[in-house]
Amino acid sequence: TIDATIPLKSRELWEKNGIQKFDEESGFEKKFVGHVETSLARSMYNCDELAAYEATSLSVRDNLLIDWNATQQKITTTEPKRVYYLSLEFLMGRALDNALINMSSNDKLANTGDNTSRGFVKKGLDDLGFNLENVLKKEPDAGLGNGGLGRLAACFVDSMATKNIPAWGYGLRYEYGIFAQKIINGYQVETPDYWLNSGNPWEIERTEIQVPITFYGYVDRVNGDTSTLSPSQWVGGERVLAVAYDFPVPGFKTSTVNNLRLWRAKPTTEFDFAKFNSGDYKNSVDQQQRAESITAVLYPNDNFTEGKELRLKQQYFWCAASLHDIVRRFKKSKRPWRELPDKIAIQLNDTHPTLAIVELQRILVDLEKLDWHEAWDIVTHTFAYTNHTVMQEALEKWPIDLFGNLLPRHLEIIYDINWFFLKEVHKKFPKDTDILRNVSIIEEATPERQVRMAFLAVIGSHHVNGVAELHSQLIRTTIFKDFAKVFGNKKFTNVTNGITPRRWLKQANPELAELIGDAIGDPSQNFLLDMSKLTALAKKADDPEFQAKWDSVKEHNKIRLANYIKELNGGVDVINKEHIRHTLFDIQVKRMHEYKRQQMNIFGVIHRYFSMKDMLKDGKSIEEVAAKYPRKVSIFGGKSAAGYYMAKLVIRLINSVAEVINNDKEIQDLLKVFFIPDYNVSKAEIIVPASDLSEHISTAGTEGSGTSNMKFVMNGGLIIGTVDGANVEITREIGEDNIFLFGHLSESVDDLRFKHQYNETPLPPSIDRVLNELDSFTEFKGEFKPLIDSIRHHGDYYIVSDDFDSYLATHHLVDETYHHSKHEWIKKSILSVANIGFFSSDRCIDEYASTIWNVEPMTP
Amino acid sequence: TIDATIPLKSRELWEKNGIQKFDEESGFEKKFVGHVETSLARSMYNCDELAAYEATSLSVRDNLLIDWNATQQKITTTEPKRVYYLSLEFLMGRALDNALINMSSNDKLANTGDNTSRGFVKKGLDDLGFNLENVLKKEPDAGLGNGGLGRLAACFVDSMATKNIPAWGYGLRYEYGIFAQKIINGYQVETPDYWLNSGNPWEIERTEIQVPITFYGYVDRVNGDTSTLSPSQWVGGERVLAVAYDFPVPGFKTSTVNNLRLWRAKPTTEFDFAKFNSGDYKNSVDQQQRAESITAVLYPNDNFTEGKELRLKQQYFWCAASLHDIVRRFKKSKRPWRELPDKIAIQLNDTHPTLAIVELQRILVDLEKLDWHEAWDIVTHTFAYTNHTVMQEALEKWPIDLFGNLLPRHLEIIYDINWFFLKEVHKKFPKDTDILRNVSIIEEATPERQVRMAFLAVIGSHHVNGVAELHSQLIRTTIFKDFAKVFGNKKFTNVTNGITPRRWLKQANPELAELIGDAIGDPSQNFLLDMSKLTALAKKADDPEFQAKWDSVKEHNKIRLANYIKELNGGVDVINKEHIRHTLFDIQVKRMHEYKRQQMNIFGVIHRYFSMKDMLKDGKSIEEVAAKYPRKVSIFGGKSAAGYYMAKLVIRLINSVAEVINNDKEIQDLLKVFFIPDYNVSKAEIIVPASDLSEHISTAGTEGSGTSNMKFVMNGGLIIGTVDGANVEITREIGEDNIFLFGHLSESVDDLRFKHQYNETPLPPSIDRVLNELDSFTEFKGEFKPLIDSIRHHGDYYIVSDDFDSYLATHHLVDETYHHSKHEWIKKSILSVANIGFFSSDRCIDEYASTIWNVEPMTP
Repeated sequence: TIDATIPLKSRELWEKNGIQKFDEESGFEKKFVGHVETSLARSMYNCDELAAYEATSLSVRDNLLIDWNATQQKITTTEPKRVYYLSLEFLMGRALDNALINMSSNDKLANTGDNTSRGFVKKGLDDLGFNLENVLKKEPDAGLGNGGLGRLAACFVDSMATKNIPAWGYGLRYEYGIFAQKIINGYQVETPDYWLNSGNPWEIERTEIQVPITFYGYVDRVNGDTSTLSPSQWVGGERVLAVAYDFPVPGFKTSTVNNLRLWRAKPTTEFDFAKFNSGDYKNSVDQQQRAESITAVLYPNDNFTEGKELRLKQQYFWCAASLHDIVRRFKKSKRPWRELPDKIAIQLNDTHPTLAIVELQRILVDLEKLDWHEAWDIVTHTFAYTNHTVMQEALEKWPIDLFGNLLPRHLEIIYDINWFFLKEVHKKFPKDTDILRNVSIIEEATPERQVRMAFLAVIGSHHVNGVAELHSQLIRTTIFKDFAKVFGNKKFTNVTNGITPRRWLKQANPELAELIGDAIGDPSQNFLLDMSKLTALAKKADDPEFQAKWDSVKEHNKIRLANYIKELNGGVDVINKEHIRHTLFDIQVKRMHEYKRQQMNIFGVIHRYFSMKDMLKDGKSIEEVAAKYPRKVSIFGGKSAAGYYMAKLVIRLINSVAEVINNDKEIQDLLKVFFIPDYNVSKAEIIVPASDLSEHISTAGTEGSGTSNMKFVMNGGLIIGTVDGANVEITREIGEDNIFLFGHLSESVDDLRFKHQYNETPLPPSIDRVLNELDSFTEFKGEFKPLIDSIRHHGDYYIVSDDFDSYLATHHLVDETYHHSKHEWIKKSILSVANIGFFSSDRCIDEYASTIWNVEPMTP
Repeated sequence: TIDATIPLKSRELWEKNGIQKFDEESGFEKKFVGHVETSLARSMYNCDELAAYEATSLSVRDNLLIDWNATQQKITTTEPKRVYYLSLEFLMGRALDNALINMSSNDKLANTGDNTSRGFVKKGLDDLGFNLENVLKKEPDAGLGNGGLGRLAACFVDSMATKNIPAWGYGLRYEYGIFAQKIINGYQVETPDYWLNSGNPWEIERTEIQVPITFYGYVDRVNGDTSTLSPSQWVGGERVLAVAYDFPVPGFKTSTVNNLRLWRAKPTTEFDFAKFNSGDYKNSVDQQQRAESITAVLYPNDNFTEGKELRLKQQYFWCAASLHDIVRRFKKSKRPWRELPDKIAIQLNDTHPTLAIVELQRILVDLEKLDWHEAWDIVTHTFAYTNHTVMQEALEKWPIDLFGNLLPRHLEIIYDINWFFLKEVHKKFPKDTDILRNVSIIEEATPERQVRMAFLAVIGSHHVNGVAELHSQLIRTTIFKDFAKVFGNKKFTNVTNGITPRRWLKQANPELAELIGDAIGDPSQNFLLDMSKLTALAKKADDPEFQAKWDSVKEHNKIRLANYIKELNGGVDVINKEHIRHTLFDIQVKRMHEYKRQQMNIFGVIHRYFSMKDMLKDGKSIEEVAAKYPRKVSIFGGKSAAGYYMAKLVIRLINSVAEVINNDKEIQDLLKVFFIPDYNVSKAEIIVPASDLSEHISTAGTEGSGTSNMKFVMNGGLIIGTVDGANVEITREIGEDNIFLFGHLSESVDDLRFKHQYNETPLPPSIDRVLNELDSFTEFKGEFKPLIDSIRHHGDYYIVSDDFDSYLATHHLVDETYHHSKHEWIKKSILSVANIGFFSSDRCIDEYASTIWNVEPMTP
């Protein structure tokens, strides 16, 4: 065994001196003071809240690392099949509070209800002179993602740890995460998010794990061998090091601690004579320094692909480092290569990691000298691919020249993959003249030939899944239609997205979690591991006493948000807190995108405002107005890609409208609008629990799944939404009475678009008026013309005009229910939560594990 | 008191949980395992030697930090006068072994002789399965300096801690230290020294200390005030952050742990609207990233100034951050400004930190609104300046345009300083028409006007010192002649350099330290704190038994070096170890520079080789040759600035000569030549103790002090040297019988140079022949022509030809003594060590403290 390599005497000494976990106040205090005095080299006299955050994190991290070591040691010795989750984004948010919730659940304090480690850490900090809430706020968000895709990866690693799946995440450690959004004069301004400014106590820099990564150069084959199928040598022209940074990922109520490994680019220290031959020392230092730029910054685009070489460099850097790591680990087991797919499942989160397929083929053929076809068989049994979108602008394509210059050997391999694949297709459909062109990895139709990454991902994977049923069905029938013909429908499957109830219920909304636990007789909140237990809530849906408690929790969370908005608003209240219980919080927070239709939301707000003003003009009293348009706050939040003009214009419009409406004394606080700047994970944790209603109103057929819809419902908010993404299954689960659906179905969208383009029809008067009067919200006449034109003259691609009246009518229904049938409303809320269990990301992991990865949990 | 700010209950808890120092094996083992398992997140199964080095360092660091905290706390509460030592270079070498020697000397194990913490740490590592020597080798050198100047600063911080002076060093944390030197085909090739590749357990990143630093921009004054003497606002155009990195500096046999604070440039996170107004997000991230380049790389020039803007940026960045820190600390004491010089002494190591003078004036006038003259009075009572060289090419000058663009307000202040100074000078010497031009800070004679930094340093300081007596005298009579007239001679003083005997005797040569301790009845080696105790050795100088032991230590160290050279030589012995006791190790290791005259050394070697060959050609036997030219190894080492063509050519010549001589079977190992690549501090620790003879042969009047001369003598090596730098005082201390001096005196040099230029005289035949036959060592005819021409045709600026015969004759004397009067030789060696005490850097610190800084030690 592995123990045998260490002399008995030493082993005993190591074991005797091994560190112990703390599980109560005094143990925590000892650790805390120790870290202040050593790791931080401070003392009680200069330990501020930031230092307290760091010392607390380091203390908690020490506990996690004991379990981390045990988990990894167990995986090494028992060799279960392992999952590697490759995602270019992990939108983790803050780590400390989550760790406190997940920590030390297998020791004597486990299963004693809430507030296990959170409780004693709070007490310990208190004794030492600190307040836990303030300490938690000192942690900057790890904003290493844009939106849903990155947050999904974060929920998945949480669930994989909780489910005891032996799994590692692989990503990049960007020095600059998603930009910080500032709102200046109503406009979005992007500022760099240098999140590591104060260091990061949650990362372990693994300086000992440094993988050399190659770019550019040329391909060489021995003895004049010209076949690209034979082992080839890639002589690189540029070399950088990938250094590993590990983030422990603790499971909930288990001692499993998985690993998230993020790579950072660093200069290589090896001696490259060719490079230094020039003798230009200063220049060679500069060159080395530039290596770090590879992982400097996250590309801030969501559902849009930017064809910059640096982006491709990021992707290859990350794939090559991860594969090197994965293969090295596999080789230590000394198993034959053909067993690799029995021991390793690699999941590709979107097409960003598609190069991993090619890289594994290269490793097997060029370095390990396997036969091409044997290698390809191993590769295709190892990878599975998750598609996130069917929108054309989001599908990755790389110009052949750029690709071949950066990765000459990979391009050869792709040509060969394509060649063998097309041969097979031709054999299957010898008479189909179009299909070869349609499924070729190389797009020939464009002026510049391009590598279609999604096609490569499909061909190199054994399973392809969408992220919601509607979306998975669209994949099969649109972008991968011909592949479904080639591979059959079985390769194309669905795993509807989910979210972790630990962060999105317990951490964001501890009051609700406690109320639920009490209500269903589960005070230690085991429902967070088995969300089907929530169905027991249904019994209480009609209970007035329970309803009152339920509503009080909501009120509490609304006040928290109202206070936060006040803080953002320079200390001045936006929301009238006197009426907060009867003020509908209507929230849309997510990336700014035309397809997500924040423009429709703000048009709706404008329409409401005009209608209220009309009534007043018609001599109606404010009470009469309030009866028809009861109290409401429209809250927005979300970032736009820096170069996305239309999305940024919508932000400006929202802020312009807010400026007018919030300052209109005439309507007496009946309507307020607020745009929360710099929406991120930690802000979501405050925003989500406060919603009465949230908006998920994408043009049907455009949203992959959406996950904020699940978060809002899990926190007792109702939804207004289109029949799109996971809204469909949310409706199925919670019942159509409990959701406000509206708008055209995806089947109609193409026809509507066609109609807009070829038969210009007049707009409905509702939206027509809104568009006509947009200028009244700005001092710059015509500022919003592009928004108007897109609907009036450019085909209204997102069918805002078609859905607008249905949207307004549904809002009217919402008002009616919220204000005149509050009992019904709360009942809907409770029933929704009771039936939201399906959307726990634990369920997703179960599905991936059994139908795609074929892995088993490992007893910790 | 400060305690009162913390509630009693919390304070008790902090104190109860405070960490404790370990002082024996089991305590160390506990710490070590804890750090492996938490700080490194490893386990016994994957703890390699690098990890063991890191865990040992972190454990030892924890101990030091307890004392560090206590020392700093004591300074804060007792408010003694403090010293700040500003040096752009700190050539620290390795930290762990030094810390082991200095650690825990005030606990129960102190004063129990050698091997206190080093002993139990060695034992503890052994038990855990590691070997201390191998672990120590894992530490990369902190190569944050070029040569003597940087190493001096390192010795000084060691001595200041040992002497209990409340002192901090301030410098820069270069990501790339002095380049690593590779020798390829005999040529020096510079490769980047990315010394932080594996992290650095000795640094504490103080993310909480971030000082904003401004560059460029313009100057503004309120209300149209046009006087540059009134408070002005500097509106900067670029801003970066200086982040502090602290390195604990432990004293020897004291619990004082001082601080070395190095600054790193990082991007600012503040929002600069002007900068982001453009909306170009990617570009603004790039700009921010570039901030880090300020501290990326050490300029690899020694005694030569490079006028790059980035260098001036480094200097200002460092001075501004340090002054900000110093002033902030002073302001906390709430004392009036006029007391600043009573509480703070700032020492400027060379002119690199001269901007600190201007920056303090700026802070006092612009930010603190002091009257100009009151401020200047404070400034000039605070600073003192150490000059290191009188060589023109090393004197810093900055073109006005470049300077004024980067630091517009500082240029104004310099003009004003100059104006008031010149007024004063004019008053004193109303009839001297030249003096104003000669002492003006602004040089007007050059095509481009320039700021003369040395003049500014002289004017802004209360004391100016040279680094050896001869040098201090030269300062007064050459470059600062007119200033001596203005200020009087008393302002110009001398502090002869020194070295720390802890690193350069105890750490590098533990066997010798032990032998000395035993010989003088001081087994706990207190002589390391009071080197005058060494004089007791003189009694034993003639004792044959002691001489034998003395010689055995030398032999041991020579074998260690011979083995190391073998390792560097690909495992093949260069030195015949059979005869090692009778082989003279002749060593010259230092920066490669024409003025240091390595060329003369290798010419001497060539001359010896030719003479040996001549004898053989004349039919003499090898025994006869050996009698005249006994066994000798000529060892060289040192880096050349990357752009210094002549110095690099000398390296190539040495290697070319080595290639020929070492492979000449005819001379049967009687002469060997070896160039040790990449000379640095840790290599010096192996090289220095192994010398029989070392060479310090600079052209008289060029070397400031030299410190390697002291190191070699302290380790029992004799010196061949010119009457230059500290050689003069070494001779005074150890007696002229114990040193081999030769060559012209500095008084003659100007005449000799004049003669070379205007009356071309034939070269002495000895050097003439060597120059004629240089081609025999290379396949490229004429390769060494520039070396030849510099002597034959370009005035032999370094008077090699004038000193050569005297040099050869002295080497003959060396041979005679070493080989035929070994008893005499060893006696000289012992007497030298007995009288080397003066050159402890502790003595330097005493002198600085009493005559320049006016500070007292603080009882720890």
